[in-house]
Amino acid sequence: MTQHGPLGVAVIGTGKMGADHVRRINEVVSGARVTAVVDVDAERVKAVADGIEGCTAYTDPAAAMAAADVDAVLIASPGPAHEAALLTAFEHDLPVLCEKPLTPDAASALRVMEAEQRLGHRRVQVGFMRRYDAEYTKLKTLLDSGELGRTLMLHNRHRNASIPSGFTNANLVNDSLVHEMDVTRWLLGQEITSVTVLRPRPSSHAPEGLDDPQFVVFETDGGAVVDVEVFLNCGFGYQVQAEAVCERGSARIGDAHDLLVNTAGRWGGTIAQDFVERFADAYDREVQAWVDATRRGEVTGPSVWDGYAAAAVCEAGVRSQSEGGRVEVELVDRPAFYR
Amino acid sequence: MTQHGPLGVAVIGTGKMGADHVRRINEVVSGARVTAVVDVDAERVKAVADGIEGCTAYTDPAAAMAAADVDAVLIASPGPAHEAALLTAFEHDLPVLCEKPLTPDAASALRVMEAEQRLGHRRVQVGFMRRYDAEYTKLKTLLDSGELGRTLMLHNRHRNASIPSGFTNANLVNDSLVHEMDVTRWLLGQEITSVTVLRPRPSSHAPEGLDDPQFVVFETDGGAVVDVEVFLNCGFGYQVQAEAVCERGSARIGDAHDLLVNTAGRWGGTIAQDFVERFADAYDREVQAWVDATRRGEVTGPSVWDGYAAAAVCEAGVRSQSEGGRVEVELVDRPAFYR
Amino acid sequence: MTQHGPLGVAVIGTGKMGADHVRRINEVVSGARVTAVVDVDAERVKAVADGIEGCTAYTDPAAAMAAADVDAVLIASPGPAHEAALLTAFEHDLPVLCEKPLTPDAASALRVMEAEQRLGHRRVQVGFMRRYDAEYTKLKTLLDSGELGRTLMLHNRHRNASIPSGFTNANLVNDSLVHEMDVTRWLLGQEITSVTVLRPRPSSHAPEGLDDPQFVVFETDGGAVVDVEVFLNCGFGYQVQAEAVCERGSARIGDAHDLLVNTAGRWGGTIAQDFVERFADAYDREVQAWVDATRRGEVTGPSVWDGYAAAAVCEAGVRSQSEGGRVEVELVDRPAFYR
Amino acid sequence: MTQHGPLGVAVIGTGKMGADHVRRINEVVSGARVTAVVDVDAERVKAVADGIEGCTAYTDPAAAMAAADVDAVLIASPGPAHEAALLTAFEHDLPVLCEKPLTPDAASALRVMEAEQRLGHRRVQVGFMRRYDAEYTKLKTLLDSGELGRTLMLHNRHRNASIPSGFTNANLVNDSLVHEMDVTRWLLGQEITSVTVLRPRPSSHAPEGLDDPQFVVFETDGGAVVDVEVFLNCGFGYQVQAEAVCERGSARIGDAHDLLVNTAGRWGGTIAQDFVERFADAYDREVQAWVDATRRGEVTGPSVWDGYAAAAVCEAGVRSQSEGGRVEVELVDRPAFYR
Ligand SMILES: [Mg+2]
Ligand SMILES: [Mg+2]
Ligand SMILES: [Mg+2]
Ligand SMILES: [Mg+2]
Repeated sequence: MTQHGPLGVAVIGTGKMGADHVRRINEVVSGARVTAVVDVDAERVKAVADGIEGCTAYTDPAAAMAAADVDAVLIASPGPAHEAALLTAFEHDLPVLCEKPLTPDAASALRVMEAEQRLGHRRVQVGFMRRYDAEYTKLKTLLDSGELGRTLMLHNRHRNASIPSGFTNANLVNDSLVHEMDVTRWLLGQEITSVTVLRPRPSSHAPEGLDDPQFVVFETDGGAVVDVEVFLNCGFGYQVQAEAVCERGSARIGDAHDLLVNTAGRWGGTIAQDFVERFADAYDREVQAWVDATRRGEVTGPSVWDGYAAAAVCEAGVRSQSEGGRVEVELVDRPAFYR
Repeated sequence: MTQHGPLGVAVIGTGKMGADHVRRINEVVSGARVTAVVDVDAERVKAVADGIEGCTAYTDPAAAMAAADVDAVLIASPGPAHEAALLTAFEHDLPVLCEKPLTPDAASALRVMEAEQRLGHRRVQVGFMRRYDAEYTKLKTLLDSGELGRTLMLHNRHRNASIPSGFTNANLVNDSLVHEMDVTRWLLGQEITSVTVLRPRPSSHAPEGLDDPQFVVFETDGGAVVDVEVFLNCGFGYQVQAEAVCERGSARIGDAHDLLVNTAGRWGGTIAQDFVERFADAYDREVQAWVDATRRGEVTGPSVWDGYAAAAVCEAGVRSQSEGGRVEVELVDRPAFYR
Repeated sequence: MTQHGPLGVAVIGTGKMGADHVRRINEVVSGARVTAVVDVDAERVKAVADGIEGCTAYTDPAAAMAAADVDAVLIASPGPAHEAALLTAFEHDLPVLCEKPLTPDAASALRVMEAEQRLGHRRVQVGFMRRYDAEYTKLKTLLDSGELGRTLMLHNRHRNASIPSGFTNANLVNDSLVHEMDVTRWLLGQEITSVTVLRPRPSSHAPEGLDDPQFVVFETDGGAVVDVEVFLNCGFGYQVQAEAVCERGSARIGDAHDLLVNTAGRWGGTIAQDFVERFADAYDREVQAWVDATRRGEVTGPSVWDGYAAAAVCEAGVRSQSEGGRVEVELVDRPAFYR
Repeated sequence: MTQHGPLGVAVIGTGKMGADHVRRINEVVSGARVTAVVDVDAERVKAVADGIEGCTAYTDPAAAMAAADVDAVLIASPGPAHEAALLTAFEHDLPVLCEKPLTPDAASALRVMEAEQRLGHRRVQVGFMRRYDAEYTKLKTLLDSGELGRTLMLHNRHRNASIPSGFTNANLVNDSLVHEMDVTRWLLGQEITSVTVLRPRPSSHAPEGLDDPQFVVFETDGGAVVDVEVFLNCGFGYQVQAEAVCERGSARIGDAHDLLVNTAGRWGGTIAQDFVERFADAYDREVQAWVDATRRGEVTGPSVWDGYAAAAVCEAGVRSQSEGGRVEVELVDRPAFYR
């Protein structure tokens, strides 16, 4: 069943990411408007709602989800709050776009997965926005075409110019590397079976408490070997690259060589400075795809299974960091519901 | 004054370009919806309107513009119909996005310019969509920053894989080269003062009646020299490139090297096959910018003066094609209204 | 007849270029050694000869050419001295590699051409070293293969970081643009029939007495249109680029993107700072090819006809600079001797 | 002491590699000539010698090395013959350029190392020609400059279009991967301390008996992590790439994007088809450097220590292939002689 009027969206969490989604829904995306904003910070949420016609402020997610003008929910609160918000959304049978991570660990993700199955139909799209990036989708289309044969290896680079202090080795896995975990699973259509984290002698620019960079190897159940460089204080910019090496060719994205300048003895261009710049279009397309699917009465995109699998791989990654060596990933059997 | 509800747009002309704008307004752009469609083909226009909730079909532009749910007009009919549609829009004081060309010649463009001045405020944005392309805007920003000094030369390539039969030398100027005329004026902030069209011995793939490729030189009132290769049957794809050569550096766009593939003895990637693919984002941004400005009660983007100047340069270009040699461009003085 | 021992070479002129050729023959090239050096500066030439075993210093070219250990002559003296040196070499029937320009004008080049024809066999290779550059030869091979069809246009860029003071508009044609004149004739296998020189408003970095940059258009007897940007104080480096646009594709050289660096917010690399760096390999290959051909008793590479044609096109170029507009090139009929 | 006449070289082994070196010394390199060729195949070696003035054929390396016109030795025989040839050269105190591998295993390399030390001065340059490649040397210069800070990671790709049948997993390490072992040690100035070989599920194009591709991780005594993709039947060409990731930037070589072609819907270029094409210049420069140093009475370039270290790392690599997991490299202490 298609919804004709614009989709009324409740945005839960009005921090940096949530506020950006509010702007996106109201000013960029077609067919949706923000009718509710929710935050534990009553003052902040009121300020956001005041700037938007027909938008109500809430401090309680459940109250927002019960409102008549709320058709769907976008969860952008901190990870530990996701499970409760998801279960409440299930009670109201509302479609959800849930920012990554789905939940902070595999056990809680498993509970959400079971709850969604009890509901009897998919309701959740998880916010792995790289699946909506123009370059990644070109790469996916090429790999799926079979033109290059089976993918044997996938080389990844994930670089940030710098990272706020307080970021830990566990954050490196759970908040950065998690993207390559999802990209690997999505591009290859395979599950990750082991994680090995190697730690070079850290850069002198690495902050206290973070071993930076790290080099990670995944093995998959399809026999692919995947490597990821994660370098969070590389100094020169935000750069995400991937090269798939296949039986009959290789394909690379992420060079971002659009404007080429010759000046002062150098040719080249500038490097994006953060993910907001690099993935702006991906976020726009992700939310548009969610709005479009929801209005058609469908659920598409990364599922709760994908959120759960990422959480399980993250747990193995953190264990490899602390214990060293290769750690096998443990996954429950994939329910038919998510096939 | 800001309009709060979505902007009701009448789209005049439901051919290829018009139909694409209808889709864009309804499915991509935020804050607007199509409330009227107009076409001389009564059957076609009815079919379009039937697929859109709250949209009425018209065969008379004036009737559409008089409707209560029409806040703004997008003109995508053939060029010869533009003048009448624009003057009618002025009668209703409606904001207009007018596809290029503004009108088919400088004299008619001048009449539109005078009519808009009588209205007392700008109402028209002309559809030079390259000004909204991400790469061109990066180039413009760089040039405007002054970092590279004054622009001395601008090298342009404008290539189509192939062109429908019936395309004439005059079409090459009025429909293809016109984009570089506008790009030159916009990037440099200068008027074009002469046009020289050179015709190499045509490609064996050039269709009857078209000298293809052609090589064009513009001179500007700021002393810049601009060259344009126009090659409409280049065979390999749609490719638009520009390099600005400045006092302290040069900057190039249009290489479009995003996905790089190694296969079968070659490295490289694919080339876009048409302008829809190459400039999809530019069209989206152009219409979004028009909707946003209109809802704020403003007019931005290329003006009727820009449409007139392009028409005047086109006339010189066609004359250089037929008479040979360098032809000077004749422009009326720029009214203060358009400064 | 093949010469078995190393070729004994007299190098005439021991300025920057001559000294570099002395080094090249002795330290880089196989099968040759410098047995004589000639310069009007007796002290300088003695210093050069003293560093080389078995090498004699001369101030008179004729004396050097009469020496028993001189098998061949490399002329690297200033252009006005070339005619006399060439005619003397013809008297001794010695093979010559003559640095460009062959002679300073078309009339003197014509006299050399007639003298060589009287000799009855080719003796001279003219020093257009770009024909030995790896990228230009790849481009030539591709064009000659016919894979891309006939060449319709050729776009060229010729940029120097800066140029010594005293360089005039005539130098720009005779010393810089002359390379693209030869490249055009060689790549296309066509004669240039007209030259048009356009002068943008000069860069603020242009020295007194030089209009810099200039933009030049050649037309050829095969109907090709060729454009050349010559920018001698571009500030950022030495950059020579060419793009051939053909019936079924285009091919570009000169990007020089070998080492790619990400640093400080930028991706890219460095630009060569002068022609010695950019064309080092071309000079090496040019001299090796001359030595190899000479030892085999052959004459290959650019001929006196090529030197004469370049001089004639240069004269047209200088006239277009001073008189403005399009100037036709006047060439004598090509002698069968040079076909 | 500098040798004034050309260096007389004995080339041992006249197979593909040896024959190419004979051509190189006689036709490309300055200051040397082949005075002796040696091969167990008497007929083949005679045929080679017959084509060269003043060159004698031998079947016994010792006889060649005893000849009065032999000043230096280039060993291009199969690996198992190297140790004996090197020891004979030491007896005659002759300078040697020894093709890689120095010897087939660490134990024999150690014996050569001890013999050279007994001689009291270095005599051997090992044929790791990548150290003479223009791109690798640019990368080395950049890393050594300190501009980018310490190198933290090095990513390598080593791809062949296809490999002759009979190539084994051990060959993959000893003949292909050995280059990255040397490159790693040379670029970083560090020793490799462990090797881990991972084997993705092989390509369907992998020949019987070879797991292709393989993915290898080195750790170094400076704390760097190095990864190498070795893919010997990648199908599309010969491609060697390296990216050094440093504290303040990264630098990449090997894209080989010199001639860029647009044709048939694709932009890009061709990929070299073998190492002879890719590293032709490196071989030329390697032999020229050896000849120049030898004539100056010096020994430069990769030493016997480098040959030994490569052999020791290879042994660890082969063990990781067969036993799985991470294998530590065992090296003797580095003698002061080789520091
Ligand atoms: Mg949108
Ligand atoms: Mg809308
Ligand atoms: Mg050489
Ligand atoms: Mg030699």
